[in-house]
Amino acid sequence: MSPRTTRHVMPPTADRRQFASDTEAPCCPSAWQALTEANHGHAAAYGDDAWTAQAVAAIRDLVEHDCAVFFTATGTAANALALAALCRGHQAVAVSEHAHLIHHECGAAQVLTPGLALRPLSSPDGRLTPEQVTALADGLGVHGHRLGALSIANASELGTVYDVDRLTAVAAAAHARGWRVHCDGARFANAVAATGATPAALSWRAGVDVLVFGGAKNGLTTSEAVVVFDRDLADDLAWRHKQAGQLAAKGRFWSAPWLGLIRSGAWLANARHANAAAARLAAGLATIPGTVLRQRVESNAVFISLPVAVADGLRARGWRFHALAGAQRLVCSWDTSAADVDAFVADARALAGD
Amino acid sequence: MSPRTTRHVMPPTADRRQFASDTEAPCCPSAWQALTEANHGHAAAYGDDAWTAQAVAAIRDLVEHDCAVFFTATGTAANALALAALCRGHQAVAVSEHAHLIHHECGAAQVLTPGLALRPLSSPDGRLTPEQVTALADGLGVHGHRLGALSIANASELGTVYDVDRLTAVAAAAHARGWRVHCDGARFANAVAATGATPAALSWRAGVDVLVFGGAKNGLTTSEAVVVFDRDLADDLAWRHKQAGQLAAKGRFWSAPWLGLIRSGAWLANARHANAAAARLAAGLATIPGTVLRQRVESNAVFISLPVAVADGLRARGWRFHALAGAQRLVCSWDTSAADVDAFVADARALAGD
Amino acid sequence: MSPRTTRHVMPPTADRRQFASDTEAPCCPSAWQALTEANHGHAAAYGDDAWTAQAVAAIRDLVEHDCAVFFTATGTAANALALAALCRGHQAVAVSEHAHLIHHECGAAQVLTPGLALRPLSSPDGRLTPEQVTALADGLGVHGHRLGALSIANASELGTVYDVDRLTAVAAAAHARGWRVHCDGARFANAVAATGATPAALSWRAGVDVLVFGGAKNGLTTSEAVVVFDRDLADDLAWRHKQAGQLAAKGRFWSAPWLGLIRSGAWLANARHANAAAARLAAGLATIPGTVLRQRVESNAVFISLPVAVADGLRARGWRFHALAGAQRLVCSWDTSAADVDAFVADARALAGD
Amino acid sequence: MSPRTTRHVMPPTADRRQFASDTEAPCCPSAWQALTEANHGHAAAYGDDAWTAQAVAAIRDLVEHDCAVFFTATGTAANALALAALCRGHQAVAVSEHAHLIHHECGAAQVLTPGLALRPLSSPDGRLTPEQVTALADGLGVHGHRLGALSIANASELGTVYDVDRLTAVAAAAHARGWRVHCDGARFANAVAATGATPAALSWRAGVDVLVFGGAKNGLTTSEAVVVFDRDLADDLAWRHKQAGQLAAKGRFWSAPWLGLIRSGAWLANARHANAAAARLAAGLATIPGTVLRQRVESNAVFISLPVAVADGLRARGWRFHALAGAQRLVCSWDTSAADVDAFVADARALAGD
Repeated sequence: MSPRTTRHVMPPTADRRQFASDTEAPCCPSAWQALTEANHGHAAAYGDDAWTAQAVAAIRDLVEHDCAVFFTATGTAANALALAALCRGHQAVAVSEHAHLIHHECGAAQVLTPGLALRPLSSPDGRLTPEQVTALADGLGVHGHRLGALSIANASELGTVYDVDRLTAVAAAAHARGWRVHCDGARFANAVAATGATPAALSWRAGVDVLVFGGAKNGLTTSEAVVVFDRDLADDLAWRHKQAGQLAAKGRFWSAPWLGLIRSGAWLANARHANAAAARLAAGLATIPGTVLRQRVESNAVFISLPVAVADGLRARGWRFHALAGAQRLVCSWDTSAADVDAFVADARALAGD
Repeated sequence: MSPRTTRHVMPPTADRRQFASDTEAPCCPSAWQALTEANHGHAAAYGDDAWTAQAVAAIRDLVEHDCAVFFTATGTAANALALAALCRGHQAVAVSEHAHLIHHECGAAQVLTPGLALRPLSSPDGRLTPEQVTALADGLGVHGHRLGALSIANASELGTVYDVDRLTAVAAAAHARGWRVHCDGARFANAVAATGATPAALSWRAGVDVLVFGGAKNGLTTSEAVVVFDRDLADDLAWRHKQAGQLAAKGRFWSAPWLGLIRSGAWLANARHANAAAARLAAGLATIPGTVLRQRVESNAVFISLPVAVADGLRARGWRFHALAGAQRLVCSWDTSAADVDAFVADARALAGD
Repeated sequence: MSPRTTRHVMPPTADRRQFASDTEAPCCPSAWQALTEANHGHAAAYGDDAWTAQAVAAIRDLVEHDCAVFFTATGTAANALALAALCRGHQAVAVSEHAHLIHHECGAAQVLTPGLALRPLSSPDGRLTPEQVTALADGLGVHGHRLGALSIANASELGTVYDVDRLTAVAAAAHARGWRVHCDGARFANAVAATGATPAALSWRAGVDVLVFGGAKNGLTTSEAVVVFDRDLADDLAWRHKQAGQLAAKGRFWSAPWLGLIRSGAWLANARHANAAAARLAAGLATIPGTVLRQRVESNAVFISLPVAVADGLRARGWRFHALAGAQRLVCSWDTSAADVDAFVADARALAGD
Repeated sequence: MSPRTTRHVMPPTADRRQFASDTEAPCCPSAWQALTEANHGHAAAYGDDAWTAQAVAAIRDLVEHDCAVFFTATGTAANALALAALCRGHQAVAVSEHAHLIHHECGAAQVLTPGLALRPLSSPDGRLTPEQVTALADGLGVHGHRLGALSIANASELGTVYDVDRLTAVAAAAHARGWRVHCDGARFANAVAATGATPAALSWRAGVDVLVFGGAKNGLTTSEAVVVFDRDLADDLAWRHKQAGQLAAKGRFWSAPWLGLIRSGAWLANARHANAAAARLAAGLATIPGTVLRQRVESNAVFISLPVAVADGLRARGWRFHALAGAQRLVCSWDTSAADVDAFVADARALAGD
């Protein structure tokens, strides 16, 4: 044995639960159980296995539509593929100025669709309005890009949610201009939980052409689902999916967790739990002097200004969370406990000298 | 409950073990154990977790090099990123006519590196020679592509293996022309097992600049490792990796299995096992009248011509395997048992009327 | 004055007329006159000028179709834009093994349409048959590309020509598979001259969706016309054209020569002249011992095997011509004179000791 | 003859001289003369002709550097190629918020370099400062782009000019961060004329790595020169140039006018003339009540607010000019006469009731 190998004797230990991101949480029990069950025997590769077939069927049932479904490794890839299905490279996509697509995906959509432009629109609460869509000026003829799609995130990057009416209105404004509509649903389940709408009502019935249904933040290991309601678009996307390096050989390990998540109802229970934890967190923090809530807490994230000493002190006590859009962002997960929330609030209160 | 959801009552059941591909096998115990251990508590996202750090360290130990390591979802993505690191779009890559890059990746490398050309070379046994590399004519000045890299697969797509001498010679011929060298090691562990060489001897010491170290076929769920020996290349590749949608938020689920696989030694034991199973399979089939072995069995695949009636009969009895390069390809996995092999051979023998 | 500037006192002098390529010829008188006329006063930029409007109208008249027309700087750009209009990056285009697209455009089409594959088909005389189109196997599902277009060259790269019947048959075979049809007409006028068909009969009436109508080889300075018969395709192509850096600010200098060429009838006269010169050249060379005509001379190129001593001797006497497809290629231009042809033949005959 | 062809009897007539853009002007006499001289006899294709060799030599003399030179059809293509030489797709380029690259090139740079980001910086006068370059925050690690280049325009899009000191300072700030520096010199000659600096002092000596030397606006027909001072970059760019569809077969028609322009000194005389015309125009308009000059007039453009009635009235009298950056932009050309300027000013004055 070389000294190199002997230095790794102990396996890593995980962190305590944090509020940095819902992607820091582990896999939830129902998804994990399905993953475990899928790990037996041989299965046809590249998505031709029974687990994938059933997971796709489960998603179709859930959204009440005979849609096409493509599983991807990451949300970045899912969004890039969704836009590749909806746009060509001379087009522009109207998005919120806070869009994950703009700030956190390193141009992945433009790699798959070279030349594509993202047109950021002012969006103080993370949402866009039909008026903005209607008023957006096209480019300078062929010298600028040609507007072709609207991309919204639901829940939005600032934790707010489009309910059915808002979503229907903004999508209708986009369709009225001949655009397609993409929904980045990295936290789609949280939006469903927040609105009480059905997945169908909050997607295709409201005018969404392609939905990215987030799995990782909802309790899976790593997988997102690109849900394509227009089958004409889906036909080509099967090739783009492969070409983008997103067709897993051992597909069952991406699809089986979805089956467990959906069949058990955990997809919704997890989201409701996380949303409730955020509400509890916001309520707790709101009573601390010097805090200012920056966004309505509609899903599982709290955007809040904390006094600098409080924020620094929390970090010094081992809490991790990120600054975003001029505030501190605190995200709750399917596994955030009331005790986690209360411990954070207590620390904050103590640091505020309250 | 709607009727839609109630029709999926029973989970899928897996197939019996097959010879269609080593990607049809499940996750091996040591990798699975590490995956399970990793599924506790919170962990920093996007690869900043302890599991990923240790998995990278374990790979560095294994290859005896302070390399950069990027985990990807698929081998297609891994190869595309490797070539993106080595080439620009006006260049051409010399490859075997049987290269997976050409036939099974739907142009993924050319999507990440638009304009890139693959120059297939005659390769009856799946390997390229230094003479071919030296003799390959460049394009017609700027009207054709500029040769810039050699891509070999080890083990090759036809199951043969480059030993250290062969690999060193062909890589030296490439470097003599100023090219970079990529190794598609979807079955790298099988090549190591076959040659008895160390991973270092069969990669950077032999002249490989970027190695794709295959995980899925070696016993993981879904993950490959792009191993970059030239750190200058790696610097930029961190961004390309994200941009390609290959940076997992919950990175521990891709990295932890690697840690289990390597620490336990299963990476090598699995490969040896699969190689031995292929040898047993070839030996068994060779005695059946009418069979012709098409390639030397050096790793875990058997390329053999079977009488049509035998091949059809085997498929009718439920065996799955693919035709490739004018032969039947039978691939053994880490979990292929002697009984599996013997059952297949017995069926073949019976069908041959032997 | 620095010594640097004084060394360029004399302007370059041109070569005598050669057989290397019809792109070596100057601009013909009718095109030149229009260019000169266009060089007065101001004109709206980016194609909004009167010269461009009239040139487009003239092309529409010529092809008897209300097509869209985009002028480009080069044939490479024109072909790349044509395929960008017809295909997406996961598709494959069936082409002759001798296609200019494959051998002489350095992957330009794949730069504009990343991932696009060209599928070369055996083509001893430069043409493809309906049978080849019908028989061509698609890729391995999503693992390979999806066939989506046929690209033919007329006149072909080997100087042969598709007449109306051949073209209609091969295009119909492509359309029967749901493919689009591109015609690389770098020497379209030569094909029209050779067949006696109208431009309409040899393009859209025969099933061509996008025609690249070559200008440079027909007597212009530098400009090709992408002629799009399906206006739905053209709508987006206006943006792609700009995005590809092919929309000239001073558009009149590309369009005015087309107007002169077409109105004067020189487009056809030039092509007839060049075709006739090639016929004279082939007839002259055919009587020299040791020569073997490799292709039927149907347009303005002669593919011929010359004895090595003759070929070398001709080059030593200052004649320039290229080897292509295993033969010497001799190309006649709008300005090739009978005396040029006869001088070349006389030199060849002398060198052959005839 | 069909009725279609007979309707185009008269050639188009040109507009009177306008202030809409210097791309609306014709070709200047010295460039035209060289173009005419080049139109004799045969010349080797694809830039291997004597005219191109001499034009490249003339540019090298002019910039006092053994640079590489690539001629392109358009400025959009030239800028896209320049950035392709300097950047890879995961990088970001710092540019002025008014950059032509952002607003008028439809993403061409991102088509050639997929994923590339442009980072607009506030720039009230069209120029960037070293402080801005130094202060610009990089992205969020791999989640955002990696800054890699500075692109400035000289003269800027708002008509202002970087003198040697300004340019040196901003380029030094970029190099201090390890970035490359691109100069969009669509109006480079105007900047040289304005500053009195030599071309060398205003390009490589000041830290410019790649200069786009504009030809069309300086008096050519259609051609720009990409001037690459780092020969290592140039080596690959030869292929990219071809691959981008920018290598003209009949290269002499792009290069010969450059030779005429440079040898005659017209490149500088034209720019001085245009700059002087703009100064005269600004001086004339400044005395009209209600006008506000929006930018210092340092090159050949005047940015001015005109009373609405005056602007409308001028357009009604047949004058064409564009609104840009919140003002009316009036551009003078090599052929703008004092009478043109005075006529425009007189019309404006009359409309203002002055």
